[in-house]
Amino acid sequence: MAKIEHVSPLAPKSGFPELPVIEGVRFAALEAGVRYSGRVDVMLAELCEGTAMAGVFTRSSTRSAAVLDCQDKIGLDGSGKAAILVNSGNSNAFTGKNGMDAVQKITKAVADTMGIDQTRVFTSSTGVIGEPLKWERITAKIADLDAALDEAGISMAARAIMTTDTFAKGATRTVQLDGATVKIAGIAKGSGMIAPDMATMLSYIFTDANISRNVLQQCIWLDNAKTFNCVTVDGDTSTSDTVLLAATGKADMAPITDFADPRVHAFREGLHAVMKDLAIQIARDGEGATKLIEVQVTGANANGPAHRVAMSIANSPLVKTAVAGQDPNWGRIVMAVGKSGERAERDRLKIWFGDILVAEDGWVSPSYSEEAGAAYMKNDEIVIRVDLGLDNGTATVWSCDLTHGYITINADYRS
Amino acid sequence: MAKIEHVSPLAPKSGFPELPVIEGVRFAALEAGVRYSGRVDVMLAELCEGTAMAGVFTRSSTRSAAVLDCQDKIGLDGSGKAAILVNSGNSNAFTGKNGMDAVQKITKAVADTMGIDQTRVFTSSTGVIGEPLKWERITAKIADLDAALDEAGISMAARAIMTTDTFAKGATRTVQLDGATVKIAGIAKGSGMIAPDMATMLSYIFTDANISRNVLQQCIWLDNAKTFNCVTVDGDTSTSDTVLLAATGKADMAPITDFADPRVHAFREGLHAVMKDLAIQIARDGEGATKLIEVQVTGANANGPAHRVAMSIANSPLVKTAVAGQDPNWGRIVMAVGKSGERAERDRLKIWFGDILVAEDGWVSPSYSEEAGAAYMKNDEIVIRVDLGLDNGTATVWSCDLTHGYITINADYRS
Repeated sequence: MAKIEHVSPLAPKSGFPELPVIEGVRFAALEAGVRYSGRVDVMLAELCEGTAMAGVFTRSSTRSAAVLDCQDKIGLDGSGKAAILVNSGNSNAFTGKNGMDAVQKITKAVADTMGIDQTRVFTSSTGVIGEPLKWERITAKIADLDAALDEAGISMAARAIMTTDTFAKGATRTVQLDGATVKIAGIAKGSGMIAPDMATMLSYIFTDANISRNVLQQCIWLDNAKTFNCVTVDGDTSTSDTVLLAATGKADMAPITDFADPRVHAFREGLHAVMKDLAIQIARDGEGATKLIEVQVTGANANGPAHRVAMSIANSPLVKTAVAGQDPNWGRIVMAVGKSGERAERDRLKIWFGDILVAEDGWVSPSYSEEAGAAYMKNDEIVIRVDLGLDNGTATVWSCDLTHGYITINADYRS
Repeated sequence: MAKIEHVSPLAPKSGFPELPVIEGVRFAALEAGVRYSGRVDVMLAELCEGTAMAGVFTRSSTRSAAVLDCQDKIGLDGSGKAAILVNSGNSNAFTGKNGMDAVQKITKAVADTMGIDQTRVFTSSTGVIGEPLKWERITAKIADLDAALDEAGISMAARAIMTTDTFAKGATRTVQLDGATVKIAGIAKGSGMIAPDMATMLSYIFTDANISRNVLQQCIWLDNAKTFNCVTVDGDTSTSDTVLLAATGKADMAPITDFADPRVHAFREGLHAVMKDLAIQIARDGEGATKLIEVQVTGANANGPAHRVAMSIANSPLVKTAVAGQDPNWGRIVMAVGKSGERAERDRLKIWFGDILVAEDGWVSPSYSEEAGAAYMKNDEIVIRVDLGLDNGTATVWSCDLTHGYITINADYRS
């Protein structure tokens, strides 16, 4: 965890939430000095026997060795204990054959120390790309991590995975599944920089639900598409993005083994809420962010086109700088819709800032006043709503403004 | 033309080039007060009888009325005089049915005043989106423009289409076609802002070649794909981007009427050189630019994937801020290759800064030194070269760095 000199103005006012103990999960974190000394940079989560594991990962063609290793393992059945180890400071990406060797060394050390099958040990690394990971600094600490495991340690873990995040990110929900109370708790790190280097999104979510690996994997895949995959800070996709979901099965419930089980719907409501909460926290902590931007697109041909139009707006430097400048520059939104490559018809398009109708019938709305638009743009949270007027496709994505702070973080330093 | 307070440090040292008179073309420019007073904001080009016209336009689905009108006309045969009228200050985009009315008013006034068929009058508008174009301010000046036409006026026209461009952009080449000397001269405006508002690319190219409309259209379409379509400042596509090419046929040569004519190759060499020269000048005048970036991709599966990888690098905010910070952060290039969606294999990928081999065999090159990389990044012109090692696809694109200047131009003002 890096020293925090400036907390995002968009950080949740309530601070880090009270996360419940998830039976079957314990956490530890400590300083391993992977890149810098004096900061907690490794976390370990231990998962009890019978835990089902699911995950989604970056689709980057240059993804890191840890991601490749997780992808090999995530589809395997396994009933013993499991573990998640995360380091910051070095992403172990583009480190050639040495990269996979480092992952082998770390996962083997965790497996041997904790008595876990190596195929059940998952790792993530975030930080500088292209430098050898000093894996021996991590393996030297695994016995200490193991000894420090604590079922109440999740907030410590949330802090340990921070890099230049300005606040720790956690979220929790409980759901009722046929009388059983099931807890879901997750942590995430967002668009922080280590050296500075890569903005990497990592999230780890834990639940005591009793749910099979296959069903769990379908849940995370579907909900990821509507949550973490709908966040953009700068449109740059990390080589290390990872979301892992672990279900310990300790809740007092009959197991869910079929995606058609009616309880899946209730479970997914809770999971979706946790993932969306964490996703928005990541946008709130975007590098240099002073405004949260929610882009809602309706009326597209289908959900896919709606998502691409929303991302075209959310990634547009001209839209993001206009929001930074509190400029109700709706012409830039028209531009971003137009460049998305998706179907749009000028005379059917409607644009709102929050509830203020800005444009309709191919022109500025007669009810719109520049003063109302300018007043709205002073808010911390800006909703840009676009209706394409074509069909029923919808999407919502979250982003932040593009400010001098982003340039300062990414250009004014040398890594 | 806006007042220039700061010329881009990347402006050509030699200033605006000496452009030749193209027989059959005359130019005029003056102040019409479209949005601001005290600046030349309208240009007119008159093209002699028999001029062949070709053009390429933005593919934005929210393109402006002027672009829609040009697209309707560009495929028509016509042998009379032709004209191009361009205004800055207002893009006449997203102005509903009034937008097309304004284009009709302007083109009819030009046609009536100059004795030209209205289908041969082409217009462009650049500036603020969504505000009614005060077309009557333009039509009021057409007689004055007509009276001021001058065959030596191209440099004045180049200045008239500037918005917040910091230097006027022109380029010229001559080609020998079977003994005839053919001249090609072009002007362009780049990523400037009016209010500030939209970064629009406009270019007008003139030649005395005797070449049919169909062949001319094929030439501009092919060469545009390798020149203007390979420039990106911020990845935001304007609603008004337009390139028009006019061939007066006044050169002493037999007409070219077939794309298979061997003289087409020589003509295209000259045309390509003019378009590439103008395209690079636009990147040199990118908003806030302090470094020109050329991205060369080789070894892709095909040219299309090579272009998408190159654009992924050239549009990456993290790559562009690293260049701004003179940081040889090649990990960000690995990231941008990885996120492009195109095939790449870590162990075949090679990356160079200029001639400095940075990465190969899935890791940093043993010959690379951080000092050499850091020294290279101090140059004004940065070449990033990537070989994917897969097949023969290649692409080259041009961009600029992302600096505080870009944020200042686009966020610190209110339009």
